[in-house]
Amino acid sequence: MKKVVLGLLGLGNIGGGVWDLIREFGSETAKRTGVKLIVKKALVLDKRIHGGKEVPDEVLTTDYNDILEDPEIQIVCEFLGGEQPAASYMKRALENGKSVVTANKMALSLHFDELREMAKKTGAGLYYEASVGGAIPIINAIQTPLISNHIEQIMGIVNGTTNYILTRMAAEGAEYEDVLKDAQRLGLAEPNPTADVEGYDAQYKLSILGSIGFHTRVNVDDVYREGITKINSEDIAFGREMGYVLKLLAIGKDNGDSIEARVHPVFLPADHPLARVDGSLNAVYLYGHSFKDMMLEGRGAGDAPTASAIVGDIIQAAQNAIHPMPYFQENPKPVADDWQSRYFIRMKAKDEPGVLAEVTGKMAKNGISVSAMMQKDADPDGKATLIFITHLASEKAVQKAVKDLNPDICQVDNVIRVEG
Amino acid sequence: MKKVVLGLLGLGNIGGGVWDLIREFGSETAKRTGVKLIVKKALVLDKRIHGGKEVPDEVLTTDYNDILEDPEIQIVCEFLGGEQPAASYMKRALENGKSVVTANKMALSLHFDELREMAKKTGAGLYYEASVGGAIPIINAIQTPLISNHIEQIMGIVNGTTNYILTRMAAEGAEYEDVLKDAQRLGLAEPNPTADVEGYDAQYKLSILGSIGFHTRVNVDDVYREGITKINSEDIAFGREMGYVLKLLAIGKDNGDSIEARVHPVFLPADHPLARVDGSLNAVYLYGHSFKDMMLEGRGAGDAPTASAIVGDIIQAAQNAIHPMPYFQENPKPVADDWQSRYFIRMKAKDEPGVLAEVTGKMAKNGISVSAMMQKDADPDGKATLIFITHLASEKAVQKAVKDLNPDICQVDNVIRVEG
Repeated sequence: MKKVVLGLLGLGNIGGGVWDLIREFGSETAKRTGVKLIVKKALVLDKRIHGGKEVPDEVLTTDYNDILEDPEIQIVCEFLGGEQPAASYMKRALENGKSVVTANKMALSLHFDELREMAKKTGAGLYYEASVGGAIPIINAIQTPLISNHIEQIMGIVNGTTNYILTRMAAEGAEYEDVLKDAQRLGLAEPNPTADVEGYDAQYKLSILGSIGFHTRVNVDDVYREGITKINSEDIAFGREMGYVLKLLAIGKDNGDSIEARVHPVFLPADHPLARVDGSLNAVYLYGHSFKDMMLEGRGAGDAPTASAIVGDIIQAAQNAIHPMPYFQENPKPVADDWQSRYFIRMKAKDEPGVLAEVTGKMAKNGISVSAMMQKDADPDGKATLIFITHLASEKAVQKAVKDLNPDICQVDNVIRVEG
Repeated sequence: MKKVVLGLLGLGNIGGGVWDLIREFGSETAKRTGVKLIVKKALVLDKRIHGGKEVPDEVLTTDYNDILEDPEIQIVCEFLGGEQPAASYMKRALENGKSVVTANKMALSLHFDELREMAKKTGAGLYYEASVGGAIPIINAIQTPLISNHIEQIMGIVNGTTNYILTRMAAEGAEYEDVLKDAQRLGLAEPNPTADVEGYDAQYKLSILGSIGFHTRVNVDDVYREGITKINSEDIAFGREMGYVLKLLAIGKDNGDSIEARVHPVFLPADHPLARVDGSLNAVYLYGHSFKDMMLEGRGAGDAPTASAIVGDIIQAAQNAIHPMPYFQENPKPVADDWQSRYFIRMKAKDEPGVLAEVTGKMAKNGISVSAMMQKDADPDGKATLIFITHLASEKAVQKAVKDLNPDICQVDNVIRVEG
């Protein structure tokens, strides 16, 4: 039996979940894998508070050096969250030859290069299955069983909070603000929901998935980002009438010479596998040249699912002779600032002749052709709602066409991309 | 760069797919993994026939000893199919210290114990990702990222042919025999379809999934098996009216003291994740105590998806210091010959008083309670169709109740289990 000594940076929800899983299931895991896990130290802010996890006093420490500088500790698990000091602690652990397991998409995606390079230098492992999709083994799948594939497409529902909000908006015809408040009350959205609802969380995750899937560095800042705060119940209802379901997606595409990386609301055809992934579930759809289409679906958050992924990583870090390390092509592919999509454009217009000519004319001028149009009766002030669905068009062309429209004739309320 | 020398047993569809993937994507895979794959020998029946794969003549051999006994060959890939000589060849390769990669669910599930033991003895690796679910990394997921879980439930659509047939029967209201013939014409079902339609293929696969997922040997013969040949369009139509979708499932449950392992048609609620996995797609739904619910979906067959899984296995066999080896608990759990399910029971009965009393009486006597009943108008000969859905009941009790029914009053046409 191989004994592996761990240090935990943090003992909150995730750290506590890992502590519980090792305590309750560690001896069974040891029988299965030949690896016995021993938590030597856990970093906490205050020794008196450790979530009722019955952690022995000698395990607790308030000094991170007790973990990072202890030569007996082989694997450091980072559960602090946030960019710093998490990134510096991980780097120091790797520098000291300790493998690092983290669930921290923010620190990882922002400091991926320096952490990778330090791991390469010292031969330590860097594992982050829990950073994207919680328990779903998406990182492992891309890096190991699916490694002999040119992955052409990644489409993921990687944020449970926004998926929960959109699912309830669709089911209840409710407005964003109301569902958000309810989700906050239920603890399903943070008091400050910005990281989730504005798409930052998905942006970090797509940076990680894109980098390892496309074998070129996809920096966080290069990922286009748009959240769900401007979505209203009308968009969802009109989309549904036309056969679409609204999701916040992280989309990555490898177009050969360049990469697409974008997080934004998307209308998916109702029969797309991602369309029925509801509530707080996460799912990642992949297309590879050899495996073809695949989807992995599961719990993207929660103490126990996250702990499942982390303990899986710890076992691999303990067993692997060669730690998986993403290979990046010699010539990095640029992340494109334009892309092709179809578009759902909702606008209000005076119910009078000339409106259609204005809209279709401006679209044609920008090379955009319309595949479907729907008009809703005029409201009391004489304005009708018009919905256009375009054929494939360039993002920039659509933005320009929308800007070019005569505001005296029509006002665009929302533009939503249509994929799948 | 680590060079790894391979021998391929077979160069048909799957072997040819692997040859192609290595030839076309091998140098990219080598950059990503540090492992360069070299196919030294490929066993064929006739050197003149090798599928137009442009395999150099010196690679082809008709003598399996050129592969099994060549000390330079490190990994043997078995694509012969069938039980023998595939199993003997794999055993011999392992005996000679070569790792084995196989897609052969039949040989593997029937000879799992001796192959495992030989691998243990010599320290060689035994890899079989492609044996269940094609490209879907389900074996890897269970053995690696999800290892620290008590897996309570496995439910899989693991046979593409039957899923294709059932999907078309549902979509077209067509009968089994007609869709089967069409599937055969399209090459989607074998000329002799028994292995698929009678559930043998799924039985082998469940034996493998159950053994590694529940950590106890699930022998092929212990898996209850029932195919789709008795399903007709009425079953599917009535099920749909009641909100169910019909699938052939491989079901494994760990009930603590015993295991359930059964392959049979199942009615799933229409909103179950497996219910919308259509056509030739495969999918496996898992429930683990820590990761909770998860589903992996993708291509279960086809040259390219199978090759994706096999090359993934080859790379792991080349890189792993410790080959994954399923751990079986000291006290094997028995596979139960009875289980709890809900049941859909379709029968014909005279349209007269006393029928309901007979049916519900016999059910009550056997401890079964009814949760829903539907009656269809009598046909010209005065017989009405009755459908009963039961609450949870024991399989044996239901079989007994059905046998006890007075054949002068009602005749049971089909009994289909309802799960999920």
